[in-house]
Amino acid sequence: MNSRPIGIFDSGVGGMTVLAEIAKELPNEDLIYLGDTKNFPYGDKSKENIIKISKKCVEFLISKNVKLVIIACGTATSQALEELRKEFNIPILGIISPTVESIKKSVKEKSKSIIGVIATEGTIRSNKWEQELKEKIEDITVINKACPLLAPMAEQGWTVNKVAKETIKEYMSVFKDKNIDKLILGCTHYPLFKGLIEKELGNGVEIINTGEKIAKAVTDYLNEQNANNDKTNNADCKIYLTDTECNFINVAEKLLKDESVKDKISKVNIE
Amino acid sequence: MNSRPIGIFDSGVGGMTVLAEIAKELPNEDLIYLGDTKNFPYGDKSKENIIKISKKCVEFLISKNVKLVIIACGTATSQALEELRKEFNIPILGIISPTVESIKKSVKEKSKSIIGVIATEGTIRSNKWEQELKEKIEDITVINKACPLLAPMAEQGWTVNKVAKETIKEYMSVFKDKNIDKLILGCTHYPLFKGLIEKELGNGVEIINTGEKIAKAVTDYLNEQNANNDKTNNADCKIYLTDTECNFINVAEKLLKDESVKDKISKVNIE
Repeated sequence: MNSRPIGIFDSGVGGMTVLAEIAKELPNEDLIYLGDTKNFPYGDKSKENIIKISKKCVEFLISKNVKLVIIACGTATSQALEELRKEFNIPILGIISPTVESIKKSVKEKSKSIIGVIATEGTIRSNKWEQELKEKIEDITVINKACPLLAPMAEQGWTVNKVAKETIKEYMSVFKDKNIDKLILGCTHYPLFKGLIEKELGNGVEIINTGEKIAKAVTDYLNEQNANNDKTNNADCKIYLTDTECNFINVAEKLLKDESVKDKISKVNIE
Repeated sequence: MNSRPIGIFDSGVGGMTVLAEIAKELPNEDLIYLGDTKNFPYGDKSKENIIKISKKCVEFLISKNVKLVIIACGTATSQALEELRKEFNIPILGIISPTVESIKKSVKEKSKSIIGVIATEGTIRSNKWEQELKEKIEDITVINKACPLLAPMAEQGWTVNKVAKETIKEYMSVFKDKNIDKLILGCTHYPLFKGLIEKELGNGVEIINTGEKIAKAVTDYLNEQNANNDKTNNADCKIYLTDTECNFINVAEKLLKDESVKDKISKVNIE
């Protein structure tokens, strides 16, 4: 048993899609969320810069006594996970490995799979998804597509309007007639566009929300380590933002279907 | 006479709209352009950060022996111009004052004017446009609108497609029935959307491209200082980018109607 909270960070509101899945899967766990809205967006920053700011995020979460850190951000996972693991002793989970492991289990032996990956410019450039998918799964074809407008659009709350619809249509056109089996949402902001993406790609394509996969990986990890929180009263959720002049609250309230998000938020300086 | 080049910087391709106007107005001047694509976008960065990176840009241009620095970026003008003037002796021009001066001349005495300003989140938050407009022009009403998606969209080359059209429609809706006389494009990326904006607002609204105003201000300045370049052969234009993995070339070629932009570009590290 371990009653310390789980720490989660992202550049903005995107990681709240991961928090939502973890809260659903592990209702007894206290959660601490850090949204580094001051440095948003991570998507087109240099690798060095992402490593630097991710370290600050992990340091902040450690100062809050978390038992585990989840990088709920595709860009930080692809560019900084290795460095963070070298720097800190605390267990750190990114969004790529749990997702690839889960896909590996679901892909039948000797069947050929075509997988689409959408993510930020920086994540696609790092090629981490393709590398890890090909390393772990035989006979797999990967089609990558950078979608640099989606995270800024989600931060602004434009996830179902006409602009979002046309943007999804434009970005998804690269997958037309490519017969993809699955589409990985390689940025945690993207589940906010899930409805539009499904509509555009049709029923034949499985849309993979990395938050669901991480939530399962965290459950397994806590069970293995016997590190669950066994409290039976309501779990606590605290949200820290590095800049509060943003649309975080609106988006987060819709996402969590919870109108009290505002009361959970504090502003923090991590520099 | 002064044959040293004019230095121009922006976070990306937006400032090329200013360069294009200066090249048209002052065909004898050598130009050096710095596009800080590595740090793009400036629009939602903190003021301290924008000051820090803008200083690096000015230092780089000074190392190229420029006679004058133009901040061809609305965000850097609104957040860093004052600090830069304190730090450096070289003359520095931003996009706000020349534009406000020009509007002041065109507004008839004792007529009431309603002016719209569109810009990045950071620029609107700084309130610099409204402050300077109200300081210099009597009886003026200012309506501000942050348009955080437009600069990323322009960098991606989406300036005339359906997404751009719907985005402009959405952002311009705030000016409907407000009877604005003029709309200031307070970010140098925005002239790339001029056609769509005009279509949306109709003929009654004058769209103000800050690049044209700066080009006139530079001409006046060089005349006053007797600092023109009197060479009669073709002027030189060099472009430096801090990151070349971007869509700069495509956008710049379309903008300048020049297919040799690529040959003018070098990559540079300013940190």
